[in-house]
Amino acid sequence: MSEQRADVVVIGAGVSGLTAARRLTQADHSVVVLEADSRVGGRTVNLDLGNGVITEGGGQWVGPGQDRVLALIDELGLRTFDTFVDGKSIYLRNGRARRYDGTIPPLRPHVLADYAQAQLRLERMARSVPLEAPWTARKAREWDATTFGGWLDAHTFTEETRQLFTLAFTVANSEDLHSTSLLQQLFRIAACGGIDHIVNITGGSQESRVVGGTQEIARRMADDLGSQVVLGSPVSAVTYDEQEVLVRSARVDVRAQRAIVAMAPPDVERIRITPDLPVRRAMLQRRWASGSESKLFAVYDRPFWREQGLNGQAVTDLPVASYVVDNSPPDGSVGILLTFVGTASSGYGQNWSDALLDDPQVRRDAFLADLTTIFGPQAAHPTTYLEKTWSHEPWISGCVGSRPPGLLTQYTDADRRPVGRIHWAGTETAIVNQGYLDGAVSAGERAADEVGRLLETTTITSARSKS
Amino acid sequence: MSEQRADVVVIGAGVSGLTAARRLTQADHSVVVLEADSRVGGRTVNLDLGNGVITEGGGQWVGPGQDRVLALIDELGLRTFDTFVDGKSIYLRNGRARRYDGTIPPLRPHVLADYAQAQLRLERMARSVPLEAPWTARKAREWDATTFGGWLDAHTFTEETRQLFTLAFTVANSEDLHSTSLLQQLFRIAACGGIDHIVNITGGSQESRVVGGTQEIARRMADDLGSQVVLGSPVSAVTYDEQEVLVRSARVDVRAQRAIVAMAPPDVERIRITPDLPVRRAMLQRRWASGSESKLFAVYDRPFWREQGLNGQAVTDLPVASYVVDNSPPDGSVGILLTFVGTASSGYGQNWSDALLDDPQVRRDAFLADLTTIFGPQAAHPTTYLEKTWSHEPWISGCVGSRPPGLLTQYTDADRRPVGRIHWAGTETAIVNQGYLDGAVSAGERAADEVGRLLETTTITSARSKS
Repeated sequence: MSEQRADVVVIGAGVSGLTAARRLTQADHSVVVLEADSRVGGRTVNLDLGNGVITEGGGQWVGPGQDRVLALIDELGLRTFDTFVDGKSIYLRNGRARRYDGTIPPLRPHVLADYAQAQLRLERMARSVPLEAPWTARKAREWDATTFGGWLDAHTFTEETRQLFTLAFTVANSEDLHSTSLLQQLFRIAACGGIDHIVNITGGSQESRVVGGTQEIARRMADDLGSQVVLGSPVSAVTYDEQEVLVRSARVDVRAQRAIVAMAPPDVERIRITPDLPVRRAMLQRRWASGSESKLFAVYDRPFWREQGLNGQAVTDLPVASYVVDNSPPDGSVGILLTFVGTASSGYGQNWSDALLDDPQVRRDAFLADLTTIFGPQAAHPTTYLEKTWSHEPWISGCVGSRPPGLLTQYTDADRRPVGRIHWAGTETAIVNQGYLDGAVSAGERAADEVGRLLETTTITSARSKS
Repeated sequence: MSEQRADVVVIGAGVSGLTAARRLTQADHSVVVLEADSRVGGRTVNLDLGNGVITEGGGQWVGPGQDRVLALIDELGLRTFDTFVDGKSIYLRNGRARRYDGTIPPLRPHVLADYAQAQLRLERMARSVPLEAPWTARKAREWDATTFGGWLDAHTFTEETRQLFTLAFTVANSEDLHSTSLLQQLFRIAACGGIDHIVNITGGSQESRVVGGTQEIARRMADDLGSQVVLGSPVSAVTYDEQEVLVRSARVDVRAQRAIVAMAPPDVERIRITPDLPVRRAMLQRRWASGSESKLFAVYDRPFWREQGLNGQAVTDLPVASYVVDNSPPDGSVGILLTFVGTASSGYGQNWSDALLDDPQVRRDAFLADLTTIFGPQAAHPTTYLEKTWSHEPWISGCVGSRPPGLLTQYTDADRRPVGRIHWAGTETAIVNQGYLDGAVSAGERAADEVGRLLETTTITSARSKS
């Protein structure tokens, strides 16, 4: 067992941890990054389709207003490209398919009115939520005592509106709306720039993708950090006192001035931390609700739907392919259709069967049947089918997920408040664009700043005490 | 590393696991029990006060209607005694203390009416919840989409009523009412025999205690099982196939026909299970909300309050000692006052300070200050102060807790539905008296029955295939 010393030890080589390590290294601090898995990237991962083609198994989109991740992408020499939207989208409901342009499905006027009033009310409520301290909103306790789904049930008048909200927010949250706190969702709406920004491709959070896949962001940062990144080395224990922090991992122990833990809150439960974490932080870790989302991909020898004037996007009431998007590579050398299977229920209130949740073959068949309904018989025979399920990862307890009721008001800022020599990164600790890649980057930068200031103070103090 | 064979391997030597092992052993099956900790009892534990006096650090009460645990206590040769209630209780609010007899505090008429209407409505709703399948109640989705606290806020008219419900149910659930699902609480009300049964000492779930402490239940079962119980042997992995289950633990590997996992759902996350658990079960484990309750005890050379005609019970709006009960040993040889510090908020909506949650000295001082307010200056100087905090256990993630919104309707019976050769015990899997010692016993017996039938079938099948 070797032991290393560094100014800072970072736990977790996802985008957030590597960003923190990069910023600290750029400021001439010594850093060691410990990663449990044999790869970097965390909840971004490229799935290899051969012939240089990849598809993104995890977080994949960036968009306007996501300044921190866009700046990092630029700094790393990566490029983005637009999510494919040229052509018509499909809105399929009650067996009837309609084609439409732009971002708004062809809703009947009373449904559109219902959707619009709900959006208006939610955004008005969201404006009263202080981003830095959502728990201080005047109605915080009331909103944190119910679920987003419960609110929608009570304040919308059409099932179609509820389905559309459910679909959009389930994809964005990988979380059943009847489990997530209304206050948490209002906070996210406020911090993301409104509901349209969460829902839309063009002009919204799904506008662009990264050439080479989003895992390239982590890979390039790790390449720059070189041997500072230790893979395959799960951390078992963190101990800190007034002098230092000691992190024990499978391959190396690291002594440092400060630690940055860049993991999803529930994953930190895998680490024995001494002294005990404060109750609020411990409970937040145990109660943060990770998502169980899977991404399903059907790969075709070409994006045949484009030849029919379609952009591959579909919003439907089908059991599996409720939201479909074209996820082909930028050159369109193959065609890829993507959908999300999130939580345990589809659309509004329809529980998925155990077979659909647990049997990849059943999932594949149901997905292809839905795609055939939407795009015709050509969709029935992909050259490749693949999926990425986030509920069975060895070191990651799921997708980003969100807070159930009561957590924001009870545990307030326990997600990011430092504990002794331990600081917290990860997209869950971001204020703006929490849950997105942009949140991962800004959280990593915030943690690096936090620690950097303390390291400097320490150095100055030491220098003074010597003089 | 040794390897053993048994008909059944039980993981967890709490009351539920040991009950399962006892019943299977009584039916002539071979059983090995693996326990991570160095003691048996799980969430029951005796705290030694010297001179043969103990107090219960965990689950401590049994009452009428809890037939399974009462039968087991009897079978083990243990005895119960009444929780001390002789004398007057104290109701302290807004600085004014009143003494009262019986179970109902001296509420002003409009508060009593408010409390009664809420109780009536909740019990009427509870009657429509099918105990075996709460998720099939007609309003299941609506009730599972909000919190019990949110419902109380909307359907009661006085803060005093809300405080009383909060106090009673927080102690019973070790869970903030603004985090727990209304449906889950209605299910518990229905399964426990009504709100009075949950709240009351005499005639309710707090009626009796066990002579020698509740940990004696587990200890006596473990003594009978002898070397079948392996302590200090945390399980790291469970693998099963069509033939058998293999359980790897620190001190021994066990091959068996069936495994019974008798742990709180979130604690099962510590074990790598192969093949992967079904999504519903995996998500239930990740989202079951463990409680963070602490029990605080002030020990005096005698129960001095009894000399003043008091029974030691108090219901107050003080920050720490909001509910106090006499927890002295049956002979009254010392006096013990007990309170509960649950979750992160006291009474109704008042968040505890971090210092109160995380600093035992601050907690002690605040507790004794409250006791002095209630019982006078004699309470200020206990001979001993001690506490048991369940949020910092090495192998237990907290108190029983409960389900946040959405879990009952999404994951339904994932708490107890067998997965391959794995069966589930633990009080969380009980239908009647879930969360109580009685639920732990009935769940252990149910799991033993489930497995016992399958073992018999297997034996018969083997015999037939040989003939």
